[in-house]
Amino acid sequence: MRIFTNPAKLQNYIKNIKLKDKTVGFVPTMGALHQGHISLIRRARKENDIVAVSIFVNPSQFGPNEDLKKYPRPFEKDVKSCKSEGADVIFAPPPKDMYPENYLTYITVEKLSALMCGKFRHGHFRGVATIVAKLFNIVQPDRAYFGLKDFQQSVIIKKMVTDLNFPVKIIVCPLVREKDGLALSSRNVYLSCEERKRALSLSRSLQNAKNLIEYKNVKSAKKIISEMKKMILPNTDKIDYIEIRDAETLEEIKYIKKKVVIAVAVFVGKTRLIDNIVV
Amino acid sequence: MRIFTNPAKLQNYIKNIKLKDKTVGFVPTMGALHQGHISLIRRARKENDIVAVSIFVNPSQFGPNEDLKKYPRPFEKDVKSCKSEGADVIFAPPPKDMYPENYLTYITVEKLSALMCGKFRHGHFRGVATIVAKLFNIVQPDRAYFGLKDFQQSVIIKKMVTDLNFPVKIIVCPLVREKDGLALSSRNVYLSCEERKRALSLSRSLQNAKNLIEYKNVKSAKKIISEMKKMILPNTDKIDYIEIRDAETLEEIKYIKKKVVIAVAVFVGKTRLIDNIVV
Repeated sequence: MRIFTNPAKLQNYIKNIKLKDKTVGFVPTMGALHQGHISLIRRARKENDIVAVSIFVNPSQFGPNEDLKKYPRPFEKDVKSCKSEGADVIFAPPPKDMYPENYLTYITVEKLSALMCGKFRHGHFRGVATIVAKLFNIVQPDRAYFGLKDFQQSVIIKKMVTDLNFPVKIIVCPLVREKDGLALSSRNVYLSCEERKRALSLSRSLQNAKNLIEYKNVKSAKKIISEMKKMILPNTDKIDYIEIRDAETLEEIKYIKKKVVIAVAVFVGKTRLIDNIVV
Repeated sequence: MRIFTNPAKLQNYIKNIKLKDKTVGFVPTMGALHQGHISLIRRARKENDIVAVSIFVNPSQFGPNEDLKKYPRPFEKDVKSCKSEGADVIFAPPPKDMYPENYLTYITVEKLSALMCGKFRHGHFRGVATIVAKLFNIVQPDRAYFGLKDFQQSVIIKKMVTDLNFPVKIIVCPLVREKDGLALSSRNVYLSCEERKRALSLSRSLQNAKNLIEYKNVKSAKKIISEMKKMILPNTDKIDYIEIRDAETLEEIKYIKKKVVIAVAVFVGKTRLIDNIVV
């Protein structure tokens, strides 16, 4: 396994790999790898000749009052995980090489970036789209792997790739949960023992919503959201949103007829958590 | 020579070419090819195994009151020119394949896109950056060729390529003029005989400015601009700007110490013309 920190050197390395007609699978991460990330690396390992993992805490997707500084960075541990999963390349650039002084170029996926998490995290998806485009140009993957945990992100990345004609196939993999239902997130380490228990209300309310739709034939989004709120409100410190949207277009829906995503964003203590389920 | 209209088919064709370790030179154009474009194709022909020319009048770089509809589209003539210059590929997609319904993704190069022509053509450089990125992802060139006529555009494209890590080398080629000095432009066909004569005031004022700087040792931007205005004002119908800026950063300068671009944008009749000289 090789570790690259310089964008141009990795770009050149990949160019030579592609000349040999080898396929490149790419897993972009911010590090602090958990079983969700590992599942992406495993899928990439199965489907490609070369597997590249990026570990980069992307400053442009954090708001000024967010957790950029304290975001966990267990680099040595991440390197070991990548190695033991058979990754071929780690890309871990210093921030100044990705955003040098006088950096000016940003990618916006309009509309989709302004709703759900975008309403509460201004500029977040602009930062995500921009770094993913940069990474795609550096790593030049045939396939890139994203987790369904960040549902809105996966929709936005797929839209960007289609709109900008990136020669990359986007593969979205299932959300991975703890045994008790908590969605895996690098931010779960922020939770105290008591907060972690309260955080379970997210996955439980989503599972309950799924049951209401599938077994109790409830179709009204308003009714489902109100049931979810009953479970979430007493256990969390702030609700950013509980929404039911079309799983393809992210349009808000009132009555459930086709595939929808039920998505939640809340604060438990000072930690912002998101979770979702596709029904 | 092959003509492609479908983005995915060209992308696939190029992918196979690159597997053979052949280099691709790319000349993006809006068609209505003149000797300026031809000079780019010739340079690309010298430096690459495969030469691709795109012919696409890009709607996203035209303002609502601009000349998108009447922009000249002499497609058969353009195809002949490309063929006789030895181009291997023409890419001429229908607009609906480049901007399908519900298109949402745009690239902005901040600051640089807001000044000079950007002040008068809102969204123009956003459209330019977006289409160039799309074309780069489709054509995947090793080198792309732009004319110095669109000076600000060349600075913005170079910045976008650096910022977004596109694996493309940008080559900017000299501005080509008629014998009498008029800068070649596909829009010159709009000019009446009388307007064409008046349009010569642009190149003359720029040449005069160059002489003032190089032979008369005039260093004050204000003084030079005022001299230019004397020549341009009586011959044009509206001046968008006459500016002297740092040729690398496009910062406005007061006293000429290093390489600058002197740039002009005016209307002659209803036709908007730009010209520039680097000193």
